[in-house]
Amino acid sequence: MTPAGIPFVKGHGTGNDFVILPDPTGSLTVTAPLVRALCDRRRGIGADGVLVVARTEAHPEVADQSGLAPWFMDYRNADGSVAQMCGNGARVFVAHLLEEGLTRPGTMHLATRGGARRVTVEDDGSIRVDMGTAEFMDRGDLLVQVSDGPHAHTASPAIGVRIPNPHAVTWVDDVHDAGSLRDAPAVTPSGAYPEGVNVEFIRVLAPGHLQMRVFERGVGETLSCGTGACAAVVATLRRSGGLPEGRRVRVDVPGGTVGVTWHVDGSVELDGPTQVVARGEIDANWWESNA
Amino acid sequence: MTPAGIPFVKGHGTGNDFVILPDPTGSLTVTAPLVRALCDRRRGIGADGVLVVARTEAHPEVADQSGLAPWFMDYRNADGSVAQMCGNGARVFVAHLLEEGLTRPGTMHLATRGGARRVTVEDDGSIRVDMGTAEFMDRGDLLVQVSDGPHAHTASPAIGVRIPNPHAVTWVDDVHDAGSLRDAPAVTPSGAYPEGVNVEFIRVLAPGHLQMRVFERGVGETLSCGTGACAAVVATLRRSGGLPEGRRVRVDVPGGTVGVTWHVDGSVELDGPTQVVARGEIDANWWESNA
Repeated sequence: MTPAGIPFVKGHGTGNDFVILPDPTGSLTVTAPLVRALCDRRRGIGADGVLVVARTEAHPEVADQSGLAPWFMDYRNADGSVAQMCGNGARVFVAHLLEEGLTRPGTMHLATRGGARRVTVEDDGSIRVDMGTAEFMDRGDLLVQVSDGPHAHTASPAIGVRIPNPHAVTWVDDVHDAGSLRDAPAVTPSGAYPEGVNVEFIRVLAPGHLQMRVFERGVGETLSCGTGACAAVVATLRRSGGLPEGRRVRVDVPGGTVGVTWHVDGSVELDGPTQVVARGEIDANWWESNA
Repeated sequence: MTPAGIPFVKGHGTGNDFVILPDPTGSLTVTAPLVRALCDRRRGIGADGVLVVARTEAHPEVADQSGLAPWFMDYRNADGSVAQMCGNGARVFVAHLLEEGLTRPGTMHLATRGGARRVTVEDDGSIRVDMGTAEFMDRGDLLVQVSDGPHAHTASPAIGVRIPNPHAVTWVDDVHDAGSLRDAPAVTPSGAYPEGVNVEFIRVLAPGHLQMRVFERGVGETLSCGTGACAAVVATLRRSGGLPEGRRVRVDVPGGTVGVTWHVDGSVELDGPTQVVARGEIDANWWESNA
């Protein structure tokens, strides 16, 4: 006789994967150790993060958003820490709401720790998320250097972007020029990013079409990074001298393809595919032993 | 409306994890691309391998074992290839049979591509698997050298063992002496293992108690390796001059603790814990798009 388990869904957006925990009644206690155990890729389910599907009104920290956004994306990083926002995660979260009949195609808002975010579900099923405003860092001396590969000893100029997490965007003729990315690229001056930095290596394939590899701080190279794609697009547009408003730029990442649209108010939208992989129940004994 | 999915269970034994696919009616078609997709840790469920739970009599390649072993552990590696046997996988497989009421505690046999294997379920729930016979490689010139860490430039003597996959076992004062193990250790003479080799780094904590790190060929450092633990025990017993029959040796691996028992007939048994993490259904659209 199997005891009742805790419902979950596993899904991903361009290879950025999540464990979704529906909590409509606010009965789950999702501790940091439990998040780490869930995201453990061998002893747990495995994911880049956990998305708790919570009612906004039940959470004091976001309750002021409940008029606009009935559902709260309570996002946790794989290390158990809370995060304000995750672009790929928001798409997977909304795809889940749609599948469960908890929202409808069109435009809606999602409550997050970073404020209510506008989300638009397109007719083709792709989901577009307001990622907030990208801001350029006001310095022209940024350099990126990788530790191996054909350009290991060459420092490349970079543009710094905050959205709001920190990025350094640089350009390459071929994304393999970034080498293995087993080690964090060196970014100088060393004081530019006291809290660490995500580094994007961009090949411009055509106007409006980029290819990207990304090294995420504290993680390593990843298949996709939503804010990284946004940073890459705005930095590339600035580098090429113009910022055409409202045009979607395609960004090929190792995990698939996303789109980034920059608006004249400085806001950036991210779109892309999502996929549900599996649904089921987490073993109650496993949950108990990791709670 | 969610279409019906394909039932699965995820479980692990000392951090060696598996997707279990029950197939009592022989209706599943589990192709190599599908196995690779299932084991993909970001775009699939993620695992070291897939265990198809099949009826022995329905599979011509093992049907001669059906009198002794009603269930066939149809094991696939994460790369989609078939494998004869997996010690941690066999424990997880039997734990699943027990949970589903498909077998009973005590001694049973499991059909595998390497022949029927004896499995014993202890009263404490731990599961002991007959791993076959360990054979020493007849050469005294084996050396192992790691690429970083405090002993990067020192070649250490090793003992070669086949069970039946190939191992080189060496000894360290501290398992950190093996360095990062990001690169495969160099094993010489270069012709000793034309098919590649798993390398075990062993610290002897006490007589009958070892600590192990392992580099698996084609994979990298892993949390646990069943045949590696067996190879480590028989090699350590030989090195210390005696092979006490029937005594259980404890082996601490990064993913937990297993036990290895060597018998006078040369056979080796592996025991250890298992844990079910989750049960559910794989999304039918996902399955279809990866089949």
